[in-house]
Amino acid sequence: MTADPSPRQQPGRSIEDVDTRPHVVVLGAGFAGLAAVRSLRKAPVRVTLVDRHSYSTFQPLLYQVATGALNPGDITYGARGFAAHTGASFRKGEVTTIDPETRTVSLDVGPDLRYDYLVIANGVTTNYFGVPGAAEHAFPIYTRAEALAVRDRMTGYLDHIAATGEARGATVVVVGGGATGVEMAGTLAELRNTVLPDRYPELDPDEVHVVLVEMTDKILPPFAPRLRDYAAEQLRRRGVELRLEAAVKEVRPDSVLLADGTELDAHMTVWATGVAAHDRVKSWGLTQGRGGRIVVGGDLRVPEHPEIFVVGDIGVIDDDPLPQLAQPAIQTGQHAGRTITRLLAGESTERFHYKDKGTMATIGRASAVADIAHGPKLVGVLAWLVWMFVHIFALLGNRNRVFVTLGLAFRYLAQRRGQIVVGDDPG
Amino acid sequence: MTADPSPRQQPGRSIEDVDTRPHVVVLGAGFAGLAAVRSLRKAPVRVTLVDRHSYSTFQPLLYQVATGALNPGDITYGARGFAAHTGASFRKGEVTTIDPETRTVSLDVGPDLRYDYLVIANGVTTNYFGVPGAAEHAFPIYTRAEALAVRDRMTGYLDHIAATGEARGATVVVVGGGATGVEMAGTLAELRNTVLPDRYPELDPDEVHVVLVEMTDKILPPFAPRLRDYAAEQLRRRGVELRLEAAVKEVRPDSVLLADGTELDAHMTVWATGVAAHDRVKSWGLTQGRGGRIVVGGDLRVPEHPEIFVVGDIGVIDDDPLPQLAQPAIQTGQHAGRTITRLLAGESTERFHYKDKGTMATIGRASAVADIAHGPKLVGVLAWLVWMFVHIFALLGNRNRVFVTLGLAFRYLAQRRGQIVVGDDPG
Repeated sequence: MTADPSPRQQPGRSIEDVDTRPHVVVLGAGFAGLAAVRSLRKAPVRVTLVDRHSYSTFQPLLYQVATGALNPGDITYGARGFAAHTGASFRKGEVTTIDPETRTVSLDVGPDLRYDYLVIANGVTTNYFGVPGAAEHAFPIYTRAEALAVRDRMTGYLDHIAATGEARGATVVVVGGGATGVEMAGTLAELRNTVLPDRYPELDPDEVHVVLVEMTDKILPPFAPRLRDYAAEQLRRRGVELRLEAAVKEVRPDSVLLADGTELDAHMTVWATGVAAHDRVKSWGLTQGRGGRIVVGGDLRVPEHPEIFVVGDIGVIDDDPLPQLAQPAIQTGQHAGRTITRLLAGESTERFHYKDKGTMATIGRASAVADIAHGPKLVGVLAWLVWMFVHIFALLGNRNRVFVTLGLAFRYLAQRRGQIVVGDDPG
Repeated sequence: MTADPSPRQQPGRSIEDVDTRPHVVVLGAGFAGLAAVRSLRKAPVRVTLVDRHSYSTFQPLLYQVATGALNPGDITYGARGFAAHTGASFRKGEVTTIDPETRTVSLDVGPDLRYDYLVIANGVTTNYFGVPGAAEHAFPIYTRAEALAVRDRMTGYLDHIAATGEARGATVVVVGGGATGVEMAGTLAELRNTVLPDRYPELDPDEVHVVLVEMTDKILPPFAPRLRDYAAEQLRRRGVELRLEAAVKEVRPDSVLLADGTELDAHMTVWATGVAAHDRVKSWGLTQGRGGRIVVGGDLRVPEHPEIFVVGDIGVIDDDPLPQLAQPAIQTGQHAGRTITRLLAGESTERFHYKDKGTMATIGRASAVADIAHGPKLVGVLAWLVWMFVHIFALLGNRNRVFVTLGLAFRYLAQRRGQIVVGDDPG
C-alpha cells in the first residue's frame, strides 16, 4: 500500500493516537444528524456518524414506497457514501447506553466511542398511545422496512382475496389526519380509482374502501383553513371516507373500534400518527419532556452536560417546542454543528431561532397544499409542483433525485397504465 | 357500475358459464410463460397465467441487484399489469399438483384450475448437486429475494468487521464459471477496486478477495476460445483469483473445501452454478430427463398428454437439449402459443427449431464478451454496448427500461463516487 498522508487507523494503534482533534460523535443519520455532520465539514474536529442502518432514509417519501411508486433504494442514501464525502467516519450500530460522566457511547456491536462533543439526533419512534391492539395489528410507516411491509401486506391481501374469491373488496383504515395520513389515504384512493380496476378485475372497486380516521375535528391541523378545506374536499372527491372527531379505542385484526362504539372494517390499519422517544432513552439519565423528548436549553445543549447537543425530533426546547418536521431537524442540526465550531474558537453559544419555511402535503395527482410561511397559501397543481420541486431538491444524491423524479413522473403521468413496484410476497 | 360487454366473472356464476372459449393455463411468469401468453393474445382462448409471485423477474440482471446497482423493482414487472395488457387473467399461487387425467391444476391457495391446454413454464431451481453444506451456507442468486439476501449479507458482513475491527478484509468465493459466476465475480472485484476504499476506509482493499471457482478447465464454456481468454484476462486484471479444475467438495460456514483438499477462506459463498427441476415435479407423473426436466417431443408436447406443453428451462427435447437461457425459453414459449392456435384451427403441430442468437456476459465497466451466432465475436466496449442495448430492450415496460438504463449508467459512469443501493440490515 502506498503511504497515506491523512490520519488513518493503523493495526495496533488506536485512532486517538493518530488524530488528536476533538472527537464529535453524531448519533443518527436522519435530517438532523446529517445536517450536523455537514456543518462540521470544515471544523477542526474528527466526526463519527453512528446509525443502526447503513443508510439515511428520506422519510417524507416513505408513503410513495408503501404505495409502490418508488423503490426503497430511491429514497435511501448510503451513510458511508455521505460520510466519505464529508470527511467523517461512519459506524454502524445501535446505541445502547450513553454515559455523560465518562463521555462514552456504547453500541450493540464493537468498541465504545469516547467523545468530546456528542450530538444526539437519533429521532423518535412510532407511538401507539397505549391503544390496545395497535402495536400488534396496525402497520406504521416510519421506516423503510415498515413501508415495505405495508406494500407487501397490501398486495398480498389483494392477491389472496383475488385468488380465493373470499371477498370482492377490502377496507384500509388510515389512522391520523396529519400530512402522512392525508398523503397515504389520498394515494391509496387514487390507486383504487386508477390502477386497481386494471390489475384486479376480480375485485369490485366500489367495495374497496379507504377510511381516514382523525381524533380532532380537522385534518392537517397546522395548515391554513382554506388549505384544510381544499385537502378534505380533494380526499372526498377521490372517495376517501373522512371520519373526524373519531378516537381509536382498539385495533383488532380485521377492524378498528372507535370511542363512540362504531366498529370499522379494516383489513389493514395504517398507523400514521404519534411519535415518541424510544424507551431506551430513559436509561441515558437525561431530563425528558413531553413524548419522552430530551429537554435542552435555547442553545440546544443539555443544561447539565453542555458538551451534549440534542437536535431533531428527539430534542425539545422546554419553553418553545418545535414541530417534528424535516426543517426544524435540519436547522437544529446545523445550529449544533456551528455551535461546536464557535466553542472550539473560544466563542459563546447562541440561541437557536427556528426559521419557519412552511409545510406541504400531497393528496394525489396534481393536487397538493403548500402553506408557505410569510408567503402564499397554494392549492392544486401549483402546490403540487412546488411539492415535487422541494422534495426532489432536498433528496441526497443525484441518483436519487433522478430516480424519484422519474418514479413520480411514471406514477402521476401514466396513472392507469402505470407500472407499480410489486411487493415481495409476505409468507 | 356500468355494463361491461366483455365476459367477466359475476358473483354466484363461475367464469366457465360466461366464457366458453377453451381455457389455456400457463404456469410460470418467466421468459417462457410470458412469451406463451403474449403469442396467445389474439387466439380464441381464455388464458390464465399462474405464478407464485405477483411479478416476473428479469433474471439476467439479478447480479446487478445483488451488487447494489439496481433496485429489485427495476428488474421485476407486475404480472397483473402484464396480464391486463395481454387480455389474460392472473392467479397468484404455487402449483401443488397437476392431474393430467382430469386436466386440473391445484394451487396452494384458492380453487383448482381446469384447463383445455396446459403450458408448463415454471422453470427450475438451484441445484447444489448434493455438495455437503452448500444448501446451508452458500447463497444462490436465482430469485429476487436471493439477490437481496446476497446484497444484505455482503453489506452486513463488511459493516460488522468495520465496526468490530475483527478483520481488515474478507473473501467472497463465487462457485461456477458460467455467465452468472463471471458477471458476479467481475462486478464484485470492480466494486472492491472502486467503491470499497471510499466507503470502508477501515478495511484494506488488498485483503478483500474475490475467488471464482470452476470445476472444468475453462470459464464461459459455450463461448468462442478468444472470448473465453479475454474474459479470463479481464477478470484477472480486476484481481479475481481464478481457480479452474477445482471441484467443490464441501461448503463450510467460513470456507470452501475443494476436492484436492485445499480449503479456501470464504466469508461468503455465492452459488452460481447448477439448476434442476423442483422436487415437486416428481409428483406430476410426467417423464423426467436429465436434471429432472420434463421430457417432451419435438413439438414441445408431452407425448402421453398432447394437451400439455412444456417450455423454458423445465422442459427438454430428449434428443436435442437446449441451453437453459432466455432465448430458448422465449422461443419455446412462443412455439407453444402458436401451436395451440394451430390446433384450434384444426392444423397439425410443427417441430420446434431453435434459432440461436448467441450469448453474452459482462465482466465490468466497458468490458464484456458477445458471441453472436453466425456473426462477429465481440469483446470490450463494443460487446458491452451490445449487452446494454439487448438487455434494456428485452426488459418489460418503459419504466424498467428507463430505470435500468440510468441505474447502470450511474454504476459504470460514476464508479468511485457512485451511489450504491444499500441493503436492509440482516439481523
